[in-house]
Amino acid sequence: MLPETLENVIHGFRQFPGIGKKTARRLAFHALNTDQNSIKAFAQSLFDMTDKIKKCKICFNITEKNICAICSDNSRDGCIVCIVESPSDITLIEQTGFRGKYHVLGGLLSPLDGIGPDDLNIRMITQKLNELKEVIIATNPSVEGETTALYIVDQFKNTNVKVSRLARGLPSGGNLEYIDELTLLRSIAERVEITNS
Amino acid sequence: MLPETLENVIHGFRQFPGIGKKTARRLAFHALNTDQNSIKAFAQSLFDMTDKIKKCKICFNITEKNICAICSDNSRDGCIVCIVESPSDITLIEQTGFRGKYHVLGGLLSPLDGIGPDDLNIRMITQKLNELKEVIIATNPSVEGETTALYIVDQFKNTNVKVSRLARGLPSGGNLEYIDELTLLRSIAERVEITNS
Repeated sequence: MLPETLENVIHGFRQFPGIGKKTARRLAFHALNTDQNSIKAFAQSLFDMTDKIKKCKICFNITEKNICAICSDNSRDGCIVCIVESPSDITLIEQTGFRGKYHVLGGLLSPLDGIGPDDLNIRMITQKLNELKEVIIATNPSVEGETTALYIVDQFKNTNVKVSRLARGLPSGGNLEYIDELTLLRSIAERVEITNS
Repeated sequence: MLPETLENVIHGFRQFPGIGKKTARRLAFHALNTDQNSIKAFAQSLFDMTDKIKKCKICFNITEKNICAICSDNSRDGCIVCIVESPSDITLIEQTGFRGKYHVLGGLLSPLDGIGPDDLNIRMITQKLNELKEVIIATNPSVEGETTALYIVDQFKNTNVKVSRLARGLPSGGNLEYIDELTLLRSIAERVEITNS
């Protein structure tokens, strides 16, 4: 009984993760009742995004130009490269104040899903070998993330590049009682000595 | 550090209710990684909606034509009109199988917020007086909803139109222990006799 154009908007919202039938309807009705110019601006921004955003030729981050803002920033240290799964991870790591550069894999190795090294931007890392001093592997601590990390470590075998990965252990503000066994096991195995200095 | 077009999409998502900074970013990145044609179709549907949807001249429901699908459906009983706050309420009542027609108020009376009868489509109900046998007031059981209901009841004083409102009481599947006092008080006051028939 809803007008077709409204049904289309509801359908459009439903394709997003975490948005079900009821939420999609609520959002569509909100779009109908709010300032129509801001909805038009939103629609235009979606069009612009699909047209303009492409991948950086150096690090595969998203950008509107050929080279992304981070790669073209000469004040950053290109010798330290943080390897991430996707462009959205960069935003998170940027918040920590990291001043090196990045390399976006575009996914993680997953033999079960048929995703091998050739499906990712994984071999391109070694092409940057002579500029590199250190790579920090920042993949998720999942099975696929660990597999990918091991593969990357292997690529740098017999080179002078230092390879590190994000520390694993107790999350800040966490409570021992609620930490899973594997995390606890790792935080004991990778315990850090306290020095009086 | 994000491309401007992507920032615009994030900003666009944030104007919707229940979508904060993190969710907006997640949705925008999803839009970037999913099929770009479906994102373009979504953007186009938003444009179409702002251009095409208007209010029904009879009941103020949303429609793409002058008269909405419900008002132009002659198989429905125009003598029984259900009065609702907004078009989205119609979708909910339609699910119950109601076969009368509707009248959309476009809001609720709220003297504190300066919303009086002239700000709503409230007086237009009485213009339909000679066609009407019954009106069902389906406003929310809130202070504004009750105020509006009382005002509507007043409009039909000294007419032959039967005025009813949605029953109030225990929600189906509810538990007495978790029902608030006011609801319980009302469900006692408006108790229904059980007849052996």
